[in-house]
Amino acid sequence: MQAIIASTSTVHGSSYLEYLEPVLKNHFRDIQDLVFIPFARPGGISHEDYTLKARKGLMSCVKSVKGLHEFSDMKQAISEAEAIFVGGGNTFLLVKQLHELDLMQTLKGSIEQGAKYLGTSAGSNICGVSMQTTNDMPIVYPPSFETLGILNFNINPHYLDPDTASTHKGETRETRIQEFQTLNSEIVVGLREGSWIKIDNLEISLEGPWPARVFEPGKEAYELSPNRPIKF
Amino acid sequence: MQAIIASTSTVHGSSYLEYLEPVLKNHFRDIQDLVFIPFARPGGISHEDYTLKARKGLMSCVKSVKGLHEFSDMKQAISEAEAIFVGGGNTFLLVKQLHELDLMQTLKGSIEQGAKYLGTSAGSNICGVSMQTTNDMPIVYPPSFETLGILNFNINPHYLDPDTASTHKGETRETRIQEFQTLNSEIVVGLREGSWIKIDNLEISLEGPWPARVFEPGKEAYELSPNRPIKF
Repeated sequence: MQAIIASTSTVHGSSYLEYLEPVLKNHFRDIQDLVFIPFARPGGISHEDYTLKARKGLMSCVKSVKGLHEFSDMKQAISEAEAIFVGGGNTFLLVKQLHELDLMQTLKGSIEQGAKYLGTSAGSNICGVSMQTTNDMPIVYPPSFETLGILNFNINPHYLDPDTASTHKGETRETRIQEFQTLNSEIVVGLREGSWIKIDNLEISLEGPWPARVFEPGKEAYELSPNRPIKF
Repeated sequence: MQAIIASTSTVHGSSYLEYLEPVLKNHFRDIQDLVFIPFARPGGISHEDYTLKARKGLMSCVKSVKGLHEFSDMKQAISEAEAIFVGGGNTFLLVKQLHELDLMQTLKGSIEQGAKYLGTSAGSNICGVSMQTTNDMPIVYPPSFETLGILNFNINPHYLDPDTASTHKGETRETRIQEFQTLNSEIVVGLREGSWIKIDNLEISLEGPWPARVFEPGKEAYELSPNRPIKF
């Protein structure tokens, strides 16, 4: 497997996928054609517009970007893809469609067979065991919360440290993840914006400038240093 | 119907339910015994501990507070209750249990028959048409997102205005609610901490010191002044 699993598509002060460009140039170095899955529809954007955005963002990395909605046989498109990018947006919407179109296992199989994967935000969330540590609103009801499980832990993208100056009483991200773990046994990696996880065959590593926040059930949360293998 | 539907149980700098005490004293003025539904389990707290907390918070308002888990026949307890408080925590957990124990319609019926209701946070969220504008993590999979529908719109509790100074790329609350409305037709009321909605028979009003943020599909979001009737 070869995958880049990024917390966010965009960091403050730069354009879509810009901060990842050197990484993606290398990741997609042998790739001509990439299949983009636009189902998460950030801000309700159409599949066409979202695909245009992805195409522009990946212009310097691959020759062509085609939206999955453009294929008459989506299963075949995923199975035969040499590279796949699942963009961010709403994770409930993404997962609902991947299940309802019976594409979740196809996508997993394709990645395991060697399709080079890129995920950002919701597209990274689905690499975990379940989507249950998403930050998104349940704007639709998916038939299941299970996801790809190409990682043996869960991702919390856009991880945010508690704001110690805040007077707001909504739960902090840390509290939410700890609530998840009162009822679930998955390890959760809180991936800060600008961080990504790289899968290079059997090696999984945390990349980018920041440490990640790791939540293991029954342990104090701790920091994981970047540019080092991840093993749980 | 008589209901107090509050954004939060606690505002900064005061104790549990303290800011609502004068309101609740009046709301529960004829009430001896209240049934507390502790299913949302904030921070994973046990039903026993959560009920103790509710009992302490309502000490000056009602004579007794009994947790729903203490009744052998929960349906009967809800049907016969003269007052019901559903506390905050995780909305997915709350809704899953209300559905699985077949209590959602019983609860709705009891409120419609005159049981005096108090909801905070998750307990307010369920007063809407669906729980789909919750801020919570999907830590469990409920059999449905439908809720009580004693209001003909949805609630977003702990509503937070966009932080214009933030460099974080996670969606703002406003963006999330607008994404919800690209696929759903419910009006959403963003209820700021310190605000509550009061149902007094046929009159619904926004109470407390703050305006609420109203999202109607296809319209610009706007502010609703407090201490005035709500009519959509």
